[in-house]
Amino acid sequence: MALISVEDALERALWGLTPLDVVRVPIAQAHGRVLAEDLAATLTQPPFDCSAMDGYAVRAADVSALPATLAPVGESVAGARFDGIVGPGQAVRIFTGAPVPDGADTVVMQEDTEASGESVLVNAAAQGQHIRPRGQDFMEGDVLLRRGTRFGARTVMLAAAMNCAELPVRRKPRVAILSTGDEIVPPGSVLGADEIVASVSYGLGAFVDAEGGEPVSIGIARDDERDLADAIARAADADVLVTIGGASVGERDLVMGALARAGLQLSFAKVAMRPGKPVFAGMLGSTRVLGLPGNPVSAFICSVVFLLPMLRGLLGTNAAIVSQPAILASALPENGPRQNYQRASSTYADDGTRHVRVLSSQDSSLTAALAHADCLIVQPRRAPALPAGAKILVLPLAG
Amino acid sequence: MALISVEDALERALWGLTPLDVVRVPIAQAHGRVLAEDLAATLTQPPFDCSAMDGYAVRAADVSALPATLAPVGESVAGARFDGIVGPGQAVRIFTGAPVPDGADTVVMQEDTEASGESVLVNAAAQGQHIRPRGQDFMEGDVLLRRGTRFGARTVMLAAAMNCAELPVRRKPRVAILSTGDEIVPPGSVLGADEIVASVSYGLGAFVDAEGGEPVSIGIARDDERDLADAIARAADADVLVTIGGASVGERDLVMGALARAGLQLSFAKVAMRPGKPVFAGMLGSTRVLGLPGNPVSAFICSVVFLLPMLRGLLGTNAAIVSQPAILASALPENGPRQNYQRASSTYADDGTRHVRVLSSQDSSLTAALAHADCLIVQPRRAPALPAGAKILVLPLAG
Repeated sequence: MALISVEDALERALWGLTPLDVVRVPIAQAHGRVLAEDLAATLTQPPFDCSAMDGYAVRAADVSALPATLAPVGESVAGARFDGIVGPGQAVRIFTGAPVPDGADTVVMQEDTEASGESVLVNAAAQGQHIRPRGQDFMEGDVLLRRGTRFGARTVMLAAAMNCAELPVRRKPRVAILSTGDEIVPPGSVLGADEIVASVSYGLGAFVDAEGGEPVSIGIARDDERDLADAIARAADADVLVTIGGASVGERDLVMGALARAGLQLSFAKVAMRPGKPVFAGMLGSTRVLGLPGNPVSAFICSVVFLLPMLRGLLGTNAAIVSQPAILASALPENGPRQNYQRASSTYADDGTRHVRVLSSQDSSLTAALAHADCLIVQPRRAPALPAGAKILVLPLAG
Repeated sequence: MALISVEDALERALWGLTPLDVVRVPIAQAHGRVLAEDLAATLTQPPFDCSAMDGYAVRAADVSALPATLAPVGESVAGARFDGIVGPGQAVRIFTGAPVPDGADTVVMQEDTEASGESVLVNAAAQGQHIRPRGQDFMEGDVLLRRGTRFGARTVMLAAAMNCAELPVRRKPRVAILSTGDEIVPPGSVLGADEIVASVSYGLGAFVDAEGGEPVSIGIARDDERDLADAIARAADADVLVTIGGASVGERDLVMGALARAGLQLSFAKVAMRPGKPVFAGMLGSTRVLGLPGNPVSAFICSVVFLLPMLRGLLGTNAAIVSQPAILASALPENGPRQNYQRASSTYADDGTRHVRVLSSQDSSLTAALAHADCLIVQPRRAPALPAGAKILVLPLAG
């Protein structure tokens, strides 16, 4: 199969993808989840005109000439309002957040008063001041959070203030992660001469977790038809099956062969990208399959390019994957026939400008260099050389 | 007590703080945790010279004149190396990641060869090419991850490649969260006339979770000495106790009084900041206490200013809280006697410059506006007015 472009491959990988079903979670568990429906406030906030200060609720007419002496007639605190009406010449002690009593239209700051038991002397005041009007924050029915919002501290706080105890969010995508290869052993093993520690599967677990998915390790399959078939069967209820391996032609044929026998509808195999050329994708029933190369860097970059949009699509999130402007700190040679994802690190000028330098070694086996990069420079196919100082776009790396 | 500066308050809040003890977690659970010790590789990667390509392992001397015809004598695949020695005129089929056999010093790409059963015709080659030397990624003993690193996908992947099955990380700070106030009811309640939905506690839970702490809700205490004392007792084993409430003088006195009776050593009460003036902190035995105002925006900003550095200190993370350069999109009036944290939103110019605009209402009760801000403009005390276009620093808001 000829190499297809990253754009074509991505389109095929996401073909027919729709967000997962909606589940309701208690608000205490909403952090990190993606809102599945627009969320409207179920109450008006504040529900009543309330005081923005500790002080006295008064009638503006009574404090138009200062100083003014008023008679204290009661108290309004949050949770226990003053039930009466503030009449002419009267003042009600009031605390922040407490309802402004009927009759009053102004709050005088405590600092601007002198109180004795029987009277309150007001030294400064302005009509209507220090009152938060009913609905200043929001009105019942206001849509304050849009579907696709990923919940963080402030949006959870807002949803609670909207009196929403349960929130409609997307089910977490189940991502089955399968390592393959006779040479792969789990971390902590005493390594035989030709053995390699499984690392991509653990990195992917964190990657999926960070994006709000549910990673499920389904182990390490030997380069063996039966073992691969058994492992693939364990992914039957996954939304996504990610296979890792097939660095070599033989292994690759084995993994793709086992998937084909299980019924894989191949979407593409081999993409004009670097690293990551051997990546493939397809559908196995309703499970989306992504076949990653075994090289850690290739696997990670294919995850950024293909798995990330897949997860965001399944979650229906409105978070865009945004490139950021930067300036090349060193010249970039012309690019070959594959879209090139170069690992780079950034420094920032005083004005915030991002200056990026390509890491010296771009070999796709270098996990340490990848861990210390902070962005990718994406060079399109056949892109011309660029001098130091050129303006470019970079893809920031999180995690 | 007079207002103290934010800097003084922060110093007192963090006084004597040391990172929590070290626990070991399986690598599959390391995501989001903070590494407590420098981590050295326990193996050399790759452990042998290996092929970077699918192709043939050959002797450079045999391909110095091209085309060259060689005799295939075996195969080296990942997990099963070629045990013999590549002699003059011989070639070994090799796959990506497989050990380069003894005798060979060069790999020829498959694309540059034509193979029949009995011979391999090499059309292009270069001495030493397509070999990843032993240790190219890292050597055994190399410290590749520093203490204080928060694990993300790439660092987890690296730690796995370093053959570390368990990782020394900081225990998660236990943060007890206590709402206070007669007027506070949980989300989903049918609200009485003067009742307010608890929102800060839920936002804080997400805040603590996002920072790698363990939020523990200890409920809502009434404005009642006994109820407060019982709640405070439930926080005995917490690393941090955060109280929410005391928007009004009366409540505040109650909460601080209950803490004082429990043995609070007060570090400060009232800070020259806006919003957030009523914030207080202290020590209750070995538990750090942070007393947040009840206003959601005040509480959130005090969390950013005080709780975030507290959590990062307990976790021993090396993540700095970094201000970012920006340009004022609208003029900023001079500031008063308190450090001012203004909620703002950003747009980005084509060159990546951040332009920030202060949100029109800065009232500390506006949760909806807070949720839609993306940064804080921090105006020092008595800062002069700034015109539109002025360069400033902003504190980005996540979550």
